[in-house]
Amino acid sequence: MNDQMYQLLKTINLFQKCSEATLKLFATHAQTINLPKNKILFVNKEPANNFYLITQGWMKLYRENIDGEQSVIDILSKHKIFGKNAIFENNVHSFTAESVEDSKLISLPLTLLKSEIEQNAKFAIEIMASMAQQRKQQDQEIENRTLKNAPQRIGCFLLNLTNRRQSGSTTISLPYDKTLIASKLGMQPETFSRALNKLKSQITMDVKGSDIYIDDIKDLVNYACSSCSSNFPCEK
Amino acid sequence: MNDQMYQLLKTINLFQKCSEATLKLFATHAQTINLPKNKILFVNKEPANNFYLITQGWMKLYRENIDGEQSVIDILSKHKIFGKNAIFENNVHSFTAESVEDSKLISLPLTLLKSEIEQNAKFAIEIMASMAQQRKQQDQEIENRTLKNAPQRIGCFLLNLTNRRQSGSTTISLPYDKTLIASKLGMQPETFSRALNKLKSQITMDVKGSDIYIDDIKDLVNYACSSCSSNFPCEK
Repeated sequence: MNDQMYQLLKTINLFQKCSEATLKLFATHAQTINLPKNKILFVNKEPANNFYLITQGWMKLYRENIDGEQSVIDILSKHKIFGKNAIFENNVHSFTAESVEDSKLISLPLTLLKSEIEQNAKFAIEIMASMAQQRKQQDQEIENRTLKNAPQRIGCFLLNLTNRRQSGSTTISLPYDKTLIASKLGMQPETFSRALNKLKSQITMDVKGSDIYIDDIKDLVNYACSSCSSNFPCEK
Repeated sequence: MNDQMYQLLKTINLFQKCSEATLKLFATHAQTINLPKNKILFVNKEPANNFYLITQGWMKLYRENIDGEQSVIDILSKHKIFGKNAIFENNVHSFTAESVEDSKLISLPLTLLKSEIEQNAKFAIEIMASMAQQRKQQDQEIENRTLKNAPQRIGCFLLNLTNRRQSGSTTISLPYDKTLIASKLGMQPETFSRALNKLKSQITMDVKGSDIYIDDIKDLVNYACSSCSSNFPCEK
């Protein structure tokens, strides 16, 4: 067994509910993957043997149509896990995974995941809880697209990057480039630019590269959350 | 124990993975609810003690903002189950549930669901599989809103009501009224009307009340699926 890997996995929420025996097996079978920027790890509909833990960088999960247009499912960073749902989908991935920066991943066997779920109820419940949370985030994303205009959706994205205080000034660093934020929000880059300008006309803010200064979070909340079913700070 | 209830629950997929003992407890604690049309069963953020099985009618799950605008999460019919995710959300519902027709429901205790999940891995896996499927449907919904125009989204909705043949003529009966279909698709009623007219101009079809005649499914597939990442017949 790889002790360093074992110690690393132990720090991840999901694996804390894992039995000692299985955790050791995960550590033994774990493989480290270095993925340079813009490389595809697997494609939609590819047979799946592994799921993945990100230890560095950012991964984009998406589906693509025949014209190369993408629908972004998620953009994930350090300590996030993806690809595990394939065990419920005949061991086939239902999206493409691509690095958006130089990234490091740990690949883990789905067979081990499945047998641990079958044997360990606490572990199964941990996975279900994370699935329920993802479901809620997706409900929120669908709501955002139904009830919010584009500037409000950008505002909502920014609020989720704050420390969730409800007033005062703050500077937010965008986690990845604006084109990617646009795809995450399901917008064309030009729609995103126009919407960001609209947002700037509504509240006092300043954009310098990837840094965004907000004069008073309260103004952003008043603007971005006004057509939402939740109140800020809402759950992530 | 209510034997009729026991026999009914036994016919539902989810409960087939349930232990005999728990199934009997479910049957004992089950309560039948008659809900007239347009009545609210529970509201978003309400404490949750039960989950529900629909035995008749249609239920709309949605969230609503302060202006009364709704984001529809799902519209469910006979034999569908809802409200169970509350056990992962501090026993609070994360949406409002309302009947869209005279409906009958069976209410079942969440505490029993939770203990069965903790004790029965097969049952837990059945629940996880249904959660994974819902996740996939939501990914598809987000993709539809990202990559498809409104007439294509209506076409996709219609294709999912067919028997999934890939050519020939068919008549589809809309399961609920057009205003509700519009909300399910995240469209304003007027957008829906315009989009339906656009669809009618693209393929040979005829709309008479809630019946829609399609001259050749192939034409609908060619039009509606052209900007999708999946091919028809895609998974439901």
